[in-house]
Amino acid sequence: MPPAPDTPRRPLLSHASHPLTVTIPAVDENGEHVPTQIAGEFPLTIYVDRREIVTLMTLGAAPEALTIGWLRNQRLVASLDDIEAVQVDWEVNAVAVKTRNGLVDADERLGSRTVTTGCGQGTVFGGLMDEIDAIRLPADRTLTQATLYALMDAVRHHESIYKQAGAVHGCALARPAADGCEILMFVEDVGRHNAVDAIAGQMWLDGLDGGDKIFYTTGRLTSEMVIKTAQMGIPFLVSRSGLTQMGWDIARKIGLTMIGRAQGKHYLLFTGEERFTR
Amino acid sequence: MPPAPDTPRRPLLSHASHPLTVTIPAVDENGEHVPTQIAGEFPLTIYVDRREIVTLMTLGAAPEALTIGWLRNQRLVASLDDIEAVQVDWEVNAVAVKTRNGLVDADERLGSRTVTTGCGQGTVFGGLMDEIDAIRLPADRTLTQATLYALMDAVRHHESIYKQAGAVHGCALARPAADGCEILMFVEDVGRHNAVDAIAGQMWLDGLDGGDKIFYTTGRLTSEMVIKTAQMGIPFLVSRSGLTQMGWDIARKIGLTMIGRAQGKHYLLFTGEERFTR
Repeated sequence: MPPAPDTPRRPLLSHASHPLTVTIPAVDENGEHVPTQIAGEFPLTIYVDRREIVTLMTLGAAPEALTIGWLRNQRLVASLDDIEAVQVDWEVNAVAVKTRNGLVDADERLGSRTVTTGCGQGTVFGGLMDEIDAIRLPADRTLTQATLYALMDAVRHHESIYKQAGAVHGCALARPAADGCEILMFVEDVGRHNAVDAIAGQMWLDGLDGGDKIFYTTGRLTSEMVIKTAQMGIPFLVSRSGLTQMGWDIARKIGLTMIGRAQGKHYLLFTGEERFTR
Repeated sequence: MPPAPDTPRRPLLSHASHPLTVTIPAVDENGEHVPTQIAGEFPLTIYVDRREIVTLMTLGAAPEALTIGWLRNQRLVASLDDIEAVQVDWEVNAVAVKTRNGLVDADERLGSRTVTTGCGQGTVFGGLMDEIDAIRLPADRTLTQATLYALMDAVRHHESIYKQAGAVHGCALARPAADGCEILMFVEDVGRHNAVDAIAGQMWLDGLDGGDKIFYTTGRLTSEMVIKTAQMGIPFLVSRSGLTQMGWDIARKIGLTMIGRAQGKHYLLFTGEERFTR
């Protein structure tokens, strides 16, 4: 008998987090040699049931969660229960995924990706736009300004790689708490969308629902970021950065509460005002 | 008789620059309604000889140059002379490219992209890594600190969209000048790599060589940025932002002079010290 959907069999996972920074020599404006920490960036090629699927460029902080989340967000795997094993091997920059029933519409989906890429967002965008109409976000959740400020404050304590080396984006999954805001996950990666995918993967692994969560990103509020947040069922999206036109169009269409330019005590509420209270 | 390579036939071009920003309503931390400018973001699907090739998400500032540069940097077109016409139609978010002799290894190249995407850089990276060994950058060019400072100063006056709306990256093609540094092109786009491709395309259209140029980007020095700069034959890459490990590895391999964290009077010289004088 298959397990209930709320208790998925947990896949066999490696735990192959990569060293996240390296120190290189650099020379500053005074001609002085300053050893400088930089962010790691490694290719990780995903093989599913021995078939090569994609190569992601990643910091390597959470390769197993990234792989699962990428497959989830590409809709190539319908549930965690379909994944039997995820084994990362940095010796060959590869991750081997073993499924129970293969990928969903693999040929059709992987084929269609060839014509909707170019900026990375595109690879995702192509497949996901169709799903927007189906997405329903909880209307009864609210976010207060106090919780928002608590989130912005909490994030500052998590950006370890960014503070050391820069050149990474951070994403956080958070939840309103009695004392302000609890950060459940924080992932940094050289790719903004990798960080989102890694959180989506970890949410599956931990069996977390998005309905009562807040998603934070240091990156821009692009179409892809909005769509992936909504896909995770999260009604709140907060960013330190700005907004693009398609991000705005799609957020309004799906009724996401979106806040940008959140720095210090400043922010801009762009969409979904009805869920926000000051 | 075909024209000499230094005088390519100029393709027939549309001039379909898109409105670059839109103003949306937003509410700030004081509950006040603040009309806010945001960057445009539009899908642009490239059709070559009626075949759908790729969809780029772009600000739309220089769609013709972006299309030509993308085809150039993907090595799908060997010379500008092969392009007969580039016609952008925002009514259908498409650009129709007419070639004289079709695309180079189209099936093989477009096919291989399906397994090397995921972060956008990947789509490019897959095809270009092979070329690194063939790249030769001029060793006799030098960049002085005075020219670097002049460049950093000049760039500040060009970032129109960023200042208005944020959420874009800017790239500049510059050349040392008697009075400091001359910016020949400045392109902003929602995608860092779109801005690079647009400059590569415009360089072809204007018949510019990269050997005596400096390439500036507001974005991170990733593997893709390093490879594309070298592909354009430009020996100097300057960024306001940080560096990733693969960007560093590749820059050393191809002997690029790379400077990051360039802000105010501060910078870090990462690679190619032999071309830099203080």
